[in-house]
Amino acid sequence: MPDPRFFTVAGPFTLQKLATIAGAEIGPGTDPDTVFTDVAPLDAAGPTDVSFLDNKKYVEAFRASRAGACLVHPDVVSRAPQGMALLVTRKPYTAYALVAQAFYPLPAPRSGVAAGAIVDPTAEIGEGTEVAAGAVVGAGARIGARCRIASNAVVGERVEIGDDTTIGACASLSHCLIGSRVNIYPGVRIGTDGFGFAMDPTGFVRVPQLGRVIIEDDVEVGSNSTIDRGAGPDTVIGRGSMIDNLVQIGHNVTMGPGCVIVAQSGISGSTRLDHHVVLAAQAGIAGHLKIGAGARIAGQSGVMRDVPAGTEVGGSPAVPMKQWFRQVTTLGNLTRGKRSRLKEE
Amino acid sequence: MPDPRFFTVAGPFTLQKLATIAGAEIGPGTDPDTVFTDVAPLDAAGPTDVSFLDNKKYVEAFRASRAGACLVHPDVVSRAPQGMALLVTRKPYTAYALVAQAFYPLPAPRSGVAAGAIVDPTAEIGEGTEVAAGAVVGAGARIGARCRIASNAVVGERVEIGDDTTIGACASLSHCLIGSRVNIYPGVRIGTDGFGFAMDPTGFVRVPQLGRVIIEDDVEVGSNSTIDRGAGPDTVIGRGSMIDNLVQIGHNVTMGPGCVIVAQSGISGSTRLDHHVVLAAQAGIAGHLKIGAGARIAGQSGVMRDVPAGTEVGGSPAVPMKQWFRQVTTLGNLTRGKRSRLKEE
Amino acid sequence: MPDPRFFTVAGPFTLQKLATIAGAEIGPGTDPDTVFTDVAPLDAAGPTDVSFLDNKKYVEAFRASRAGACLVHPDVVSRAPQGMALLVTRKPYTAYALVAQAFYPLPAPRSGVAAGAIVDPTAEIGEGTEVAAGAVVGAGARIGARCRIASNAVVGERVEIGDDTTIGACASLSHCLIGSRVNIYPGVRIGTDGFGFAMDPTGFVRVPQLGRVIIEDDVEVGSNSTIDRGAGPDTVIGRGSMIDNLVQIGHNVTMGPGCVIVAQSGISGSTRLDHHVVLAAQAGIAGHLKIGAGARIAGQSGVMRDVPAGTEVGGSPAVPMKQWFRQVTTLGNLTRGKRSRLKEE
Repeated sequence: MPDPRFFTVAGPFTLQKLATIAGAEIGPGTDPDTVFTDVAPLDAAGPTDVSFLDNKKYVEAFRASRAGACLVHPDVVSRAPQGMALLVTRKPYTAYALVAQAFYPLPAPRSGVAAGAIVDPTAEIGEGTEVAAGAVVGAGARIGARCRIASNAVVGERVEIGDDTTIGACASLSHCLIGSRVNIYPGVRIGTDGFGFAMDPTGFVRVPQLGRVIIEDDVEVGSNSTIDRGAGPDTVIGRGSMIDNLVQIGHNVTMGPGCVIVAQSGISGSTRLDHHVVLAAQAGIAGHLKIGAGARIAGQSGVMRDVPAGTEVGGSPAVPMKQWFRQVTTLGNLTRGKRSRLKEE
Repeated sequence: MPDPRFFTVAGPFTLQKLATIAGAEIGPGTDPDTVFTDVAPLDAAGPTDVSFLDNKKYVEAFRASRAGACLVHPDVVSRAPQGMALLVTRKPYTAYALVAQAFYPLPAPRSGVAAGAIVDPTAEIGEGTEVAAGAVVGAGARIGARCRIASNAVVGERVEIGDDTTIGACASLSHCLIGSRVNIYPGVRIGTDGFGFAMDPTGFVRVPQLGRVIIEDDVEVGSNSTIDRGAGPDTVIGRGSMIDNLVQIGHNVTMGPGCVIVAQSGISGSTRLDHHVVLAAQAGIAGHLKIGAGARIAGQSGVMRDVPAGTEVGGSPAVPMKQWFRQVTTLGNLTRGKRSRLKEE
Repeated sequence: MPDPRFFTVAGPFTLQKLATIAGAEIGPGTDPDTVFTDVAPLDAAGPTDVSFLDNKKYVEAFRASRAGACLVHPDVVSRAPQGMALLVTRKPYTAYALVAQAFYPLPAPRSGVAAGAIVDPTAEIGEGTEVAAGAVVGAGARIGARCRIASNAVVGERVEIGDDTTIGACASLSHCLIGSRVNIYPGVRIGTDGFGFAMDPTGFVRVPQLGRVIIEDDVEVGSNSTIDRGAGPDTVIGRGSMIDNLVQIGHNVTMGPGCVIVAQSGISGSTRLDHHVVLAAQAGIAGHLKIGAGARIAGQSGVMRDVPAGTEVGGSPAVPMKQWFRQVTTLGNLTRGKRSRLKEE
């Protein structure tokens, strides 16, 4: 059970209600009015908990589980233990996410400006929005309804934020427009100058960065990540994209909807990602490239060329995934060969 | 045109004035009193905008541009469209940077300590310096003239800062001396303990870190970067060096003037960079090394040995650039060969 | 001598006292009542300074040193310069750390809540604890004795912190339990949501992250590092582990005691490190792996498989260290061979 210091469980919910939330069908022979009180993993769940099976690897745990109810794919219904209520869906993990959100909803913002927050009188704050202690909201900023501006966050001058958006503790925003239902994690930096300057023997000369950062709706930006504003065009993070912690996004980068950028990756200036591109952890993409829709970049790889839509690349410099595997295998074989020869000598 | 919410254009300027700012010559047949109102890229510029051509790749865009004026190299003067005013210089990009700075000067600091800033009574704050809401300035700190200490930044006890320096939102400084015209971006950490401890079977024993961080004049340090203070000697960032976001600089590192450290790179303890060294993104340098003047380290490379002045290295472990290219090519050929053989079988 | 603006030397101490602090024996022929005033490196130390020799590479510097006293291994006693007092120990570097800590103790916290700090009335603050200007402590938080909550740090609701722990400037904590004698550096983010969501064609669905972060006693977490809370189980950092700057620790990661995670490394979700694992800088470990006790992961390597206890791995993808060296050598030989052939043609 989650630590009640940090998590407050909602509910209880009837099986019928959970089926509606999950978009699932109730399995045969179960009373839809049975009541459930919490979510739990298969091995820890008890008779009033809802669990889920998403990976066939865990079928044995499913068969042994004491969970009162379980979200499952139609294929495994026949393997359920006796007496377990089933919520049947083709997407058990999505369904679990929705059920868990119902049991553990985000607490509502505490509407109003807390003591110790500093809000410029010209800023507009929407209804139901919380500005926590120590937060600073600059002149002319416009924040929508039901937002949460956490402690010691800084919303810069004339920044605009949609509805139901969270700005985490100690994050800072400038020169940006932020959508609705966006989650900016603690310590994120958005809208700072891009890394643009003219090299000159007498010293570097800063080129004014005259663009913005546009964060579309439903985006998440992980802790301590940095997104620079455009040099003239804007830097754009597409709707629903998920950015993990400690990620760097350079100036003028644009990203279509649904991209996933895992921790410590970096995207250099002016590179364009189409929709649903995935970068695994610690990957890097050079500047001025085009990455096609649905492309997948392996962890730690270094992309130096355009990547066509739907392809996977790995290695540094990155090559198509199969070629990278061959490189790794070939190098392994060569060194094993060498070792054999050394032993024969 | 830059978003007027975030950018206020100065000017207008006559062609004569722009020539002076840019250090450029006015091309033949143009009235030096013609007035210009903004900067813009070649494809977006109109008759009252100033643009620039820095890369021959864009000569066609230049020929088709409607820009009223353009900063160009002498070599391309003959290819200008009719009626375009030319500002001729051997360094069009530097000249553009200067012109853009004139049109978009940094707003002057709002002199004074804002409500909600907390300044220790023993701190000294120079004339014209702004301490924004939520900023904290510790005992005995000394801040020069015309500085900008942004919201929720922390200037630690007895830290010294020169003139015209910016400390970004939520940045924190301790045990350091910062020069003039320095730009510390939001979330930067300067002066924290280096990673120094004695390994001991009964537990690690912290070694007090007794040095400082010295940031010389005209340095930039990008968002969320970290610079540890020296263990005994100082950590030193040389004049005019440009450090990008999420960079790690270990204790006792010294860096000559004019170095460029691109995002997510790291420099381990006690390594010495001579002047004008360039690290591309996500590169790493091991500790206790010497990197010669003007050396260039490729992105994602891992430097395990000293690098002589003027050389380029790449790969992990890093080797001279030509050798790295050969490694990449050889490995590519081997795997292609293997594939062919497999197909023949 | 350390800059007196930032460091206040304690002492002086007699040789006898220093021997006790260091757990060392006083060498023959020295007056135990001789008084020493500071620590210094061998080449800078004077007659009232204590230095140390930990690496035989520096024996010549030792022989030439003017240090009044030196912490040395028994093996080098015979090579000491005339008149130098010796403190003999098998662990000179640990001994030096202890002596340096005695000369440069951390200043005691300034007990109390500073003006400009915002502490919720339901929070409990232990005796002797300092809450500095701009810090925010949330409802129900419990902070032990003699802690230091630095300026603009945020201690979230119901977070618990042991005794003698430091939370650095602009750091933020939520959903976590922090031990005693822990040092959280500036800008660290602890307890934020793990990167967990269900992929769905209609958009990603956030999976509530219902675990915590547990930081055991004597841990250090370097500047701007990020530690996500567990998805259901907890994320655990084992006793005495040292985490450097800009490190990413994913949800559900557990780490035994005494691990060392060097700067810019990342550990993906659900990976388990046994005790005393070392990750060198910029290394990455994929998710759901087991890393055995005392394993050592080379800088920039990418670990894709379990690593047995006591082994060293390097490369990306990581292989046993000897194999990695062979790969590097083989590739070097191949490319040198190719070059020769090219020259012969």
